[in-house]
Amino acid sequence: MSVVKSATAFAELMAEARQTVALGQVMGRLGWDQETVMPRGSADQRGDEMAAMEGVLHARLSDPRLGALLDAAEASDAAGAAQLRELNRSHARAVKVPSALAQEIARTTSVAQGTWAQARAAEDVAAFLPTLAEVVRLKREEASALAQGGDLYDAMVDDYEPGMTGADIAAMFGEMRPRLVALRDKIMGAANPPQALSGAYSADSQMRLARDLATTFGYDWSRGRMDIAVHPFSSGSGNDVRITTRVAEADPFNCFYSTIHEVGHACYEQNVDPDYLLTPIGKGVSMGVHESQSRIYENQLGRSRAFTGWLYTQMRERFGEFGIASAEAFYGTVNRVQPGYIRTESDEVQYNLHIMMRFDLERALISGDLQVGDLEAAWNDRFKADFGVAVDRPSHGMLQDVHWSVGLFGYFPTYSLGNLYAGCLHQALRHDLPDLDRDLASGKLTSATDWLREKVQRHGALYTPRDLITQAIGKAPTAAPLLDHLETKFSEIYAL
Amino acid sequence: MSVVKSATAFAELMAEARQTVALGQVMGRLGWDQETVMPRGSADQRGDEMAAMEGVLHARLSDPRLGALLDAAEASDAAGAAQLRELNRSHARAVKVPSALAQEIARTTSVAQGTWAQARAAEDVAAFLPTLAEVVRLKREEASALAQGGDLYDAMVDDYEPGMTGADIAAMFGEMRPRLVALRDKIMGAANPPQALSGAYSADSQMRLARDLATTFGYDWSRGRMDIAVHPFSSGSGNDVRITTRVAEADPFNCFYSTIHEVGHACYEQNVDPDYLLTPIGKGVSMGVHESQSRIYENQLGRSRAFTGWLYTQMRERFGEFGIASAEAFYGTVNRVQPGYIRTESDEVQYNLHIMMRFDLERALISGDLQVGDLEAAWNDRFKADFGVAVDRPSHGMLQDVHWSVGLFGYFPTYSLGNLYAGCLHQALRHDLPDLDRDLASGKLTSATDWLREKVQRHGALYTPRDLITQAIGKAPTAAPLLDHLETKFSEIYAL
Repeated sequence: MSVVKSATAFAELMAEARQTVALGQVMGRLGWDQETVMPRGSADQRGDEMAAMEGVLHARLSDPRLGALLDAAEASDAAGAAQLRELNRSHARAVKVPSALAQEIARTTSVAQGTWAQARAAEDVAAFLPTLAEVVRLKREEASALAQGGDLYDAMVDDYEPGMTGADIAAMFGEMRPRLVALRDKIMGAANPPQALSGAYSADSQMRLARDLATTFGYDWSRGRMDIAVHPFSSGSGNDVRITTRVAEADPFNCFYSTIHEVGHACYEQNVDPDYLLTPIGKGVSMGVHESQSRIYENQLGRSRAFTGWLYTQMRERFGEFGIASAEAFYGTVNRVQPGYIRTESDEVQYNLHIMMRFDLERALISGDLQVGDLEAAWNDRFKADFGVAVDRPSHGMLQDVHWSVGLFGYFPTYSLGNLYAGCLHQALRHDLPDLDRDLASGKLTSATDWLREKVQRHGALYTPRDLITQAIGKAPTAAPLLDHLETKFSEIYAL
Repeated sequence: MSVVKSATAFAELMAEARQTVALGQVMGRLGWDQETVMPRGSADQRGDEMAAMEGVLHARLSDPRLGALLDAAEASDAAGAAQLRELNRSHARAVKVPSALAQEIARTTSVAQGTWAQARAAEDVAAFLPTLAEVVRLKREEASALAQGGDLYDAMVDDYEPGMTGADIAAMFGEMRPRLVALRDKIMGAANPPQALSGAYSADSQMRLARDLATTFGYDWSRGRMDIAVHPFSSGSGNDVRITTRVAEADPFNCFYSTIHEVGHACYEQNVDPDYLLTPIGKGVSMGVHESQSRIYENQLGRSRAFTGWLYTQMRERFGEFGIASAEAFYGTVNRVQPGYIRTESDEVQYNLHIMMRFDLERALISGDLQVGDLEAAWNDRFKADFGVAVDRPSHGMLQDVHWSVGLFGYFPTYSLGNLYAGCLHQALRHDLPDLDRDLASGKLTSATDWLREKVQRHGALYTPRDLITQAIGKAPTAAPLLDHLETKFSEIYAL
């Protein structure tokens, strides 16, 4: 009797949950719209629309009836248990945050994104600071509600990487930093760096090749589309997963590798088991695991010697001779390490150093050790210290990323965690597919992407992030495979 | 004490209503997305998303707490009273329709739109019939719930034109039909019809001129955008009002006049008093009044001798000589009356004959006198009888319009009502602005659009449709001004 009742409660719970997940997808659609096609004058109204949607979602997730159903429901299999885990997590979070605050955050961050974009275009930090201060205030208030006496930043990280803390991240960076800095410094002192790319590459031809690259990496166009955005992103789950990229005539690698990166995110969502469609586990399980997919597509596969050999022939076919004499030279050009302001344009070696800097700055902002008004100076000082270059303009400094404007504090570290996971997955992938380079060299990605779909993507949020990666690689994840890989790869390229 | 309590209830009601209106706007955004950018493979998932949104809206509108607030609320001014009128209307409607039915209609019509588009492209009526039968079944079930023993079709019309019935429409058509048919027949027998347009007009140049026309007619691009869609439409209210158009190289008038038409709809929404933003009266009051704006922009203004004179110079500047020797000849070309299958491409004289045919067919479908399986034959018979031409393919026949696929039964007649209202408004406008042609001849639309904004658009849903038009023109609306105008105009053009 009790089991029957519990199974009924589970079914009722899942019917409700499907609607809630569908409404979450609607909010994702609005986010896509806002960043790609929304008229600028609609920003305030969109803020109200987002707040109304957040009010609906919050009411559903914090509903005491949902709590009662969760208490009564019994899952009959592992997938059901995972659904309950995800629902319990969402419910527990929602009941802690007042609805008015949740709505205010939705409204403010929606509008703030436009404010950030305008300030960035105008190189005007002062125009952004009041907005950023308000976002920090609201997110700290939310974190206080969530942490219930615990650490605010930990509560924020938990939203993106369940179970992870600021201390875990600090430990990860403690392991990564010395080897990355040492490698970077050796590279910067190398005698014969690879040749830089020069010339102009038509935007239309870049976009055509970008589309072909998306297809090559397995993106399903029948359930997605690609547009241009200021800040490339992937959006949506299941059967409507859209990507964006950007294009500049002088920098085709930015377009190509932004595209491959977002395809990694999108394929994770498109390849989740269709049985999980519009359910709580029908999505990527965490931001760290998500980034492991985008990063392994972009870096370990996309920037490999074998694949860049194929890309070299593609570029020569489409752009003619462009001043790089051989596939081997092109491999160096693609992987060139150089000083640069922009995180998203950074090479594999320095990328995580950008993240470490953001981690320390945002943690200080949230703890109150750093005030928003002092952020620009703190950013510029730290950048000079870490990268040896003075920031020359705000869009190359603290205005470069959208994240803080939309309240994504605690999110940046998941990028480095993703790199770490990608290193582990790549090691296991190479073990299982010893002939992988033969495929990559002819532009065939399916053996690699099939492996990733089987080991990671299809599971959605069935397992916890760490369990998922541990199962996929057969051991606990560490930073060693990533660091070993980078040292080997760049020692070859730079003849260290 | 009672007044204080009622004012409090009113304020509470309005706070709720603003959120509901914002959620309605979100559904509008999804509709825009579906018809412009959505990947085809997302159709089923989108159906679930629309159903979930409909479930939310239905729950809010049918909430007994809303009913109690409506009973307790007291408005302090005319705008407040209108808010209560609109809210009472929405609440009364929602409580009659079961939530499951409302959601099923949202899901089914969302998916049905894609099914229709594919069937139309494939000229495959059979592929569309099961879907259409299901839509008819669901909409009849909804109408039964709404009509509560009354006429089903009347209940449907009331959704789009509050207070209007099938009998009212039949009476309107009874007045219009004889004079329109007589005029059409005289035109068809005329000795020297105007010259037809020939040649090819580049799609890019058409779109550039279409954008300029939108600007000329007062469209605010900072709060809107224009895209391509199979079936042009306008979408959204307040500060996010988007239009779509279509473009074919052989038929630039289709692009230009579709654009002007949708700009008329969009300006109505953009020009509603900003105080009404995201409230129940912050939108066009009915489909008939909406169509009066799109039609007067398109026809009485856009196809006038004065304005086509300006358009002629614009087209010559952009496309060079295109085979029409004078502005006067061009006026005839723009207003050419000829046999044609497609309603949206029809001239001012025959347009309402298309609507009369749809009205009779859909009324018979809803009453049960006509079965879905017999619709194509009924359409083709009636078309031959009314227009003297045999339908040559389904996309020229019953598959030409999106409306029935998305459940819009009772909607078509509001197009003719809009034409009737446009005739009345045009008569009053000409009376108030005797020098209007001087402005139109130099492409200046602001005197006319200012008048329409002042008399109609800014009021949103403050007044009932008939009261609004009656106030605007100073007397009760009739079909006479429209018919007089058409007889005068086309007698000149065709030298009747």
